[in-house]
Amino acid sequence: MRTIKIGLLGLGTVGGGVVKLLQEHAAKIEQTTNVHFILKRVAVAHLNKPRKFSLPEETILTDQIDEVLNDPEIQIIVETMGTINRARQAIVQAIYNHKSVITANKDLLAIDGPKLAQLAKSRHVDFLYEASVAGGIPILRVLSSSLVTDQITRVSGIINGTANYILSAMVSDNLSYDKALMNAQQKGYAEANPVNDVKGIDAANKLSILSQFAFGKALDPTNLNVRGIDQLTSAQLASAKQFGYTIKLLAIAKRLSNRLYTSVGPTLVDNNDQLAQVNGVQNAIAIESNALGSSVYTGPGAGAKPTANSILSDLAAAANDILNYDCGNAFNNYHSELTPSTLNNAPQSYLITIYGRSTRPVDSIDWQNETSNHNYWSGLTPVISHKKLNLLLETIGNDFAVSYLPVYGTVKLQAIKEVKQN
Amino acid sequence: MRTIKIGLLGLGTVGGGVVKLLQEHAAKIEQTTNVHFILKRVAVAHLNKPRKFSLPEETILTDQIDEVLNDPEIQIIVETMGTINRARQAIVQAIYNHKSVITANKDLLAIDGPKLAQLAKSRHVDFLYEASVAGGIPILRVLSSSLVTDQITRVSGIINGTANYILSAMVSDNLSYDKALMNAQQKGYAEANPVNDVKGIDAANKLSILSQFAFGKALDPTNLNVRGIDQLTSAQLASAKQFGYTIKLLAIAKRLSNRLYTSVGPTLVDNNDQLAQVNGVQNAIAIESNALGSSVYTGPGAGAKPTANSILSDLAAAANDILNYDCGNAFNNYHSELTPSTLNNAPQSYLITIYGRSTRPVDSIDWQNETSNHNYWSGLTPVISHKKLNLLLETIGNDFAVSYLPVYGTVKLQAIKEVKQN
Repeated sequence: MRTIKIGLLGLGTVGGGVVKLLQEHAAKIEQTTNVHFILKRVAVAHLNKPRKFSLPEETILTDQIDEVLNDPEIQIIVETMGTINRARQAIVQAIYNHKSVITANKDLLAIDGPKLAQLAKSRHVDFLYEASVAGGIPILRVLSSSLVTDQITRVSGIINGTANYILSAMVSDNLSYDKALMNAQQKGYAEANPVNDVKGIDAANKLSILSQFAFGKALDPTNLNVRGIDQLTSAQLASAKQFGYTIKLLAIAKRLSNRLYTSVGPTLVDNNDQLAQVNGVQNAIAIESNALGSSVYTGPGAGAKPTANSILSDLAAAANDILNYDCGNAFNNYHSELTPSTLNNAPQSYLITIYGRSTRPVDSIDWQNETSNHNYWSGLTPVISHKKLNLLLETIGNDFAVSYLPVYGTVKLQAIKEVKQN
Repeated sequence: MRTIKIGLLGLGTVGGGVVKLLQEHAAKIEQTTNVHFILKRVAVAHLNKPRKFSLPEETILTDQIDEVLNDPEIQIIVETMGTINRARQAIVQAIYNHKSVITANKDLLAIDGPKLAQLAKSRHVDFLYEASVAGGIPILRVLSSSLVTDQITRVSGIINGTANYILSAMVSDNLSYDKALMNAQQKGYAEANPVNDVKGIDAANKLSILSQFAFGKALDPTNLNVRGIDQLTSAQLASAKQFGYTIKLLAIAKRLSNRLYTSVGPTLVDNNDQLAQVNGVQNAIAIESNALGSSVYTGPGAGAKPTANSILSDLAAAANDILNYDCGNAFNNYHSELTPSTLNNAPQSYLITIYGRSTRPVDSIDWQNETSNHNYWSGLTPVISHKKLNLLLETIGNDFAVSYLPVYGTVKLQAIKEVKQN
């Protein structure tokens, strides 16, 4: 049995989860990894803040982050502080001090993940972040080990638990968006400022990381066309339900030849699709690939213990690399030259909802389904071009308020012939 | 880039899949593993059998298995011959010749897995078998890496694609068991002799392997109480449907303190449970654990390419260990001293179906639901003891044919106080 000393930055929900699981599961972890982990130092902002759990006796609590980062005995640093700049600074210093680093900081990773991974590789330390996407679903390790020999064509994820909780409550309890958000906030599933979750920003950040593992191409999340769930109407939810669909905040990346098409936003999912049945704070990731066809991974998207377990699995991997003198391998080795593009401009089927009228609009569309009441009319289009969608919205929009949502799985992409540039 | 030469035993469905994927996905595999794999030799029973794919030019086809097993250049042997004795002999010889071994042979593994793993460890070679359970679902690697730090309390699997295909067809197309089996045979989803699949033997073998990874305890599959799907009646299927359930062939292992309770057989699954929605040849594994709560992994249970992909992911892992001089680590390091027991004797809820009568039996049971037509009467019991079930079956069985099925998730276990023996 070898001993490895670790340092922890931050002792909030996730940091606390790491401390608890390390103690509760110590026997199994030692047996399976053959490593005795000692949590040597923990850095916090406020030393005397009351906490619901106790640290191991040997652990030193400090408000001086440098005491953790510069301790020569510490070989692995677990970062759970959150925020971007402070975390980046700490991670860079840890890497320079030749410590392997584990983080769940998806906001930082979406911006600087590839750069930090490169830095870690050059300093021969590990940089692992399984917990950054879909909390307790081990999707990054699955993509970088079990699916590394497969060729992935599409990744579709329900990867924001807050948004999925709100959407599930809107459907099952027939709540308005505002009421469902308030409930989520009261239950601690949504923050006081929920903008990152409900506007799709968090999902876009995670899609960027997922895309790096699935397609070898990190996406710039600020370049993604992202729609939130905060503009959804009860008319849209009711119409979707009537047509046999459920509305989910989906993050999608789909490869065709050398292009990577993405979409983040509320999307109609057929009730027979497994993704439609993922409710509450659960997350799910559906993968289409050449060898496997369809696979779906479902699990907890957040929470202290699920996130902590993903961190501990990184800890086991990092420890194994230390014992084998094999640190500095990238978490993900796959690189490809794909051109980012958007799914939003591709031909697909849409749910169109018109407010303040209850009759079908006059147009040339072969509506697949329709419904109405005294407040609105909704219809499901066949696969139509983006141009045709815009024409339709323009025509209707002259007289009535109108909204639209894409239908998952209906996209018809055609390989675009690339013109070689000299 | 390093080169690793491999040998393949068998060139049937799975062996052919390995050959094809190794060629189709060569570029990605080389980039992500940094290894150039050369398929040096392939052993087959019949040299001149026509095949739908071509071998790489450098590959030598032979009907002398020793030429593969004794080639000093070959570092990894992939066994896809099937059968138990021949495969065991070849694997043992390969291990003695200091070659890492990859196999999908679940029948052999269920009997001799732990012994072969021990032998491989003592000879410092890898012994990997991701493809042996649930084809393309990377469940063994997930359990031995991402969930190695978690504590698992229950594993429930739809792990026989043939049985699930037959059951799905019985429900969706309203077929009898015999007719559904015939269809499955015609489509190539069931073998001419389907006994291993429909009697639950294959599922029991896989549960034995799963249990080793999830609970550190390999089960002797011949000691499991296994029920098949071949006695299911259309009355049971119709009644289950009416009560909001779907019948699935479930393999379950559930841990309570130091006992491991198992069950393999047709079981009613609530339609709201994700497992109820897994249809056709798809497999699914649901895991309950301390840190994660509920996770579900769904994917293809069999087929050339899914199985081959699992083999290739083992190949990537074995190659990595060869490059790191780190062979001989067990695929799964977890061991625990659990006493095997059966779920079948535990208090739970049952579907009772009585044939040839259409009225409720006279008894003291608080039936949760009931239905009848001119051919049968069916009722759903509350949670009752095994003793009460037997009494009920005896009473009814005096006059009528009667059958019963357990309801998934209703088991009430109580920790059994162990008496220390001196």
